[in-house]
Amino acid sequence: MDTSTQTERTRVKRLPNRGAYDRETIYAILDKAFICHVGYVLDGQPYVIPTGYARIGDDLYIHGSAASRMLRNLAQGVDVCVTVTLVDGLVLARSAFHHSINYRSVVVLGKATFVEDAAEKEKALEAFTEHAIPGRWPEIRWPSELELKATSVLKLPIEEASAKIRAGDPKDDEEDYAMDIWAGVLPLKVIPGEPIDDSRLKSKMPVPEHVSGYGQGR
Amino acid sequence: MDTSTQTERTRVKRLPNRGAYDRETIYAILDKAFICHVGYVLDGQPYVIPTGYARIGDDLYIHGSAASRMLRNLAQGVDVCVTVTLVDGLVLARSAFHHSINYRSVVVLGKATFVEDAAEKEKALEAFTEHAIPGRWPEIRWPSELELKATSVLKLPIEEASAKIRAGDPKDDEEDYAMDIWAGVLPLKVIPGEPIDDSRLKSKMPVPEHVSGYGQGR
Repeated sequence: MDTSTQTERTRVKRLPNRGAYDRETIYAILDKAFICHVGYVLDGQPYVIPTGYARIGDDLYIHGSAASRMLRNLAQGVDVCVTVTLVDGLVLARSAFHHSINYRSVVVLGKATFVEDAAEKEKALEAFTEHAIPGRWPEIRWPSELELKATSVLKLPIEEASAKIRAGDPKDDEEDYAMDIWAGVLPLKVIPGEPIDDSRLKSKMPVPEHVSGYGQGR
Repeated sequence: MDTSTQTERTRVKRLPNRGAYDRETIYAILDKAFICHVGYVLDGQPYVIPTGYARIGDDLYIHGSAASRMLRNLAQGVDVCVTVTLVDGLVLARSAFHHSINYRSVVVLGKATFVEDAAEKEKALEAFTEHAIPGRWPEIRWPSELELKATSVLKLPIEEASAKIRAGDPKDDEEDYAMDIWAGVLPLKVIPGEPIDDSRLKSKMPVPEHVSGYGQGR
């Protein structure tokens, strides 16, 4: 398979030095986030829906309500854009104009198709869960045949994609560096809070390690 | 103005009890997040781009690279979908099938137009900054006439919109509640890290209160 995911459509045109097209960079971002925004077109109107996803090899799998709405309207391959964004911090420049966000994002374009094969579907569902919270899948009740049928999973080959990254200091106009204004970066990160027991827990039981230790080393 | 933002296109069709259409609910979500995903169509292909935004009254303002790409291709009103998503936690059920995410999202559909008026543009830029980090605008150098011209800002009236919210415990199948599996919610939140001085700070200066106190009461 071609190792580059650059096409005319995915080439980063504005601030091209922020663009990257190698699978290593793209996959690192895809493997870190777990919510994507899926864009599709219906009667000329774009829709953008947040949903879960996972990567297996060179394929992206998505599921959830986006799939449902598309399922009802489109029988075969549908043009989608899947965008994944990690917000890393606020970039606070001396001038309003140079304020920015430090972020890592990936855009994948292509035709998504429905996964019909039960085994592939189950593998995707395992990947969704393990991607969002590693270590959970072995502990839970796996999907029944009926549940598998009730679940729609879309598969999108990662062939046409780009990453866009902004990191580091603000870039101010040269003359503004002399101003008495604090500038820098305020990092933002996602952290877990205290796990909340389901109100219908059968009995008091310890919070499992894959929950209490969530996010360590991610 | 009509207080409801529900139309056939924005009605939440899957799990309709998660849908809301009142401006209070919608604006609370829009005012909490500061990154949106803008969807638009070019030659039949949907694109989804993350960018900053702010709300002023019943209008949503967006800017950044999405605007640039659209600017080059579309001279007038363009159909967009702006989606804002807050991820509140992982919903860990006993069955794989009922795993979910607690989230609050808003979808706004409509035609975005470019803001030409310099005063309105500046007001939008102030709102972008104050929305992302309240208290910053009075401290920084404001946009020059040239910078205003170089900035593209899009305005989208909030007329056709919906909110979708999932909160609380997992919902398992009745028979699964008897299983010896921990279930509950792992809350996720965005927190600021330690502010990082710009490497070109003129001199050592204190981090201002609007940075060090970021997010309190948000």
